[in-house]
Amino acid sequence: MTVSLDDVRQAAERIAGRVRRTPVIEVAPGLTFKLELLQHTGSFKPRGAFNRLLSAKDSGELTGQGIVAASGGNHGLAAAYAARELGVPARIFVPETTPAAKLNKLRTLGADVVQVGSEYAEAYQAALAAQDESGALLVHAYDQPEVVAGQGTVGLELLEQAGMFDTVLVAVGGGGLIAGIATAIGDNAQIVGVEPALAPTMHRALEAGRPTDGPVGGVAADSLGARRLGDLAHTAVQSHHVQSILVEDDAIVAARKQLWHEHHLATEHGGAVAWAALASGAYKPAAGERVVVVVCGSNTDPGTLI
Amino acid sequence: MTVSLDDVRQAAERIAGRVRRTPVIEVAPGLTFKLELLQHTGSFKPRGAFNRLLSAKDSGELTGQGIVAASGGNHGLAAAYAARELGVPARIFVPETTPAAKLNKLRTLGADVVQVGSEYAEAYQAALAAQDESGALLVHAYDQPEVVAGQGTVGLELLEQAGMFDTVLVAVGGGGLIAGIATAIGDNAQIVGVEPALAPTMHRALEAGRPTDGPVGGVAADSLGARRLGDLAHTAVQSHHVQSILVEDDAIVAARKQLWHEHHLATEHGGAVAWAALASGAYKPAAGERVVVVVCGSNTDPGTLI
Ligand SMILES: Cc1ncc(COP(=O)(O)O)c(C=O)c1O
Ligand SMILES: Cc1ncc(COP(=O)(O)O)c(C=O)c1O
Repeated sequence: MTVSLDDVRQAAERIAGRVRRTPVIEVAPGLTFKLELLQHTGSFKPRGAFNRLLSAKDSGELTGQGIVAASGGNHGLAAAYAARELGVPARIFVPETTPAAKLNKLRTLGADVVQVGSEYAEAYQAALAAQDESGALLVHAYDQPEVVAGQGTVGLELLEQAGMFDTVLVAVGGGGLIAGIATAIGDNAQIVGVEPALAPTMHRALEAGRPTDGPVGGVAADSLGARRLGDLAHTAVQSHHVQSILVEDDAIVAARKQLWHEHHLATEHGGAVAWAALASGAYKPAAGERVVVVVCGSNTDPGTLI
Repeated sequence: MTVSLDDVRQAAERIAGRVRRTPVIEVAPGLTFKLELLQHTGSFKPRGAFNRLLSAKDSGELTGQGIVAASGGNHGLAAAYAARELGVPARIFVPETTPAAKLNKLRTLGADVVQVGSEYAEAYQAALAAQDESGALLVHAYDQPEVVAGQGTVGLELLEQAGMFDTVLVAVGGGGLIAGIATAIGDNAQIVGVEPALAPTMHRALEAGRPTDGPVGGVAADSLGARRLGDLAHTAVQSHHVQSILVEDDAIVAARKQLWHEHHLATEHGGAVAWAALASGAYKPAAGERVVVVVCGSNTDPGTLI
């Protein structure tokens, strides 16, 4: 299964007015940030969630049973937000380790929060079971075509907003964001996927020739915590010749602090991973190369920024 | 003395490439934020500082003696930043009460920091004396034509970026920002000055028919802490029929938290004052009125956002 540029374009039409068109800022000559951390709920995830829900609404799959999703993080917030905006109930399955602050945020959005198991995989199994039983719509965190197409609208906006650019740096977890952006941008620029060295799902998939499970760790694991790359993402990053860069935890921590002190942006660790590639020198642009960095998440305890 | 639209246009040319063109974001239909908190040093102040320094460079007034300024806050940071970028020394006079974190920021920018007296007025007198003695260039925080014209470039950008709008909400301290924006925007929109009820310099000037000294207090006093409106600002806000709105401290505190939780923007209290007018209902737009809010400062301890 693949996602096409047309799918992304249709997603953009479908979700228009539901998501914010986030701005870009040229922070230095040839260096542009896409400020996707200013999206509703603080990450790009509502784009995919709205596209999934609105597509299902059109096809009759979205019923009064509403939706289920598994996530203690940004995907859960986005799914709960989209469900609330569309007036359907949301049941969000989260690991028992999810901090109280996140549970409260989900509840404030009106979600029914179910704590189950010690990690994401168990929450996901519970969400699948609930879908089977109730007929609710499952909204996957990254490996559904509508979700990938929705995240891809970040790329369409970039083509309209950012003038000419050569390269886009994007953080990778399950790969929904990079798959969508690669599909949207096609041959217009080189896409570079950036991952924590301690959670390299895409790097591992490109080496093995297929997505494989692996350990997840490091400072960004709360948002870049998928065990393996999604199949849709694997297809997309292969066909678009996406480059892979790994960054160490200390580079992520330093990049996040720099985003605060020099750019006045409050990001979570996952939201600083793409910038970390450039800031640490792990990615070295050529002379004159025009680079876009997707700054993609702000769900953080702001007290830890300094 | 007045500042003209032409002065603002010349300022825009002069400072191009030195300041960031900060983006706008439509956060709801008809409601746009100008994200001036993403400017270098975290506030709009570098616009005025660069215009003052570059004008003086052209006229030969900027010598190897560099600049002096008085401020423990955003103006000091901006003046120090501009001086560093232009390769001239900066001496910044600050009250002895200035917190260590701000002193460190100024020193990191290479400024020579002089602590004197218990409040801004004393630091200002010391800066004036230093100017007399050394021939350094004084960069005023708000009441110099080049400073007002520089701040006005925020308004020129808005005219290019924000589509059609009816109203611009702007925070007021000494009035440099609002004077510049009113001059830039002219008859294209209604300008509304928003002030803390505990530091109402513009409100008092409009009532008295001239700027008068008054007490300064409240949560935003570290940035909106001028004792009186500048003369240039008084002339500009009168001739542009600027409206005046006061907001209470609790509204400012609530607005700042809302900017963080709903808009993912980390602002200082002064940077949330304009939004507070709308969020608290102190300013009530008419049906269909398209409002721009200038979000103008992020120099805050992020740990206090939640
Ligand atoms: C802030 C942030 N950045 C990046 C990602 C990675 O997105 P994806 O799983 O689509 O690769 C996530 C996923 O949750 C996220 O929350
Ligand atoms: C964040 C912020 N907003 C608004 C103002 C007010 O600007 P002005 O003194 O030009 O009215 C200041 C002044 O320092 C400021 O720092």
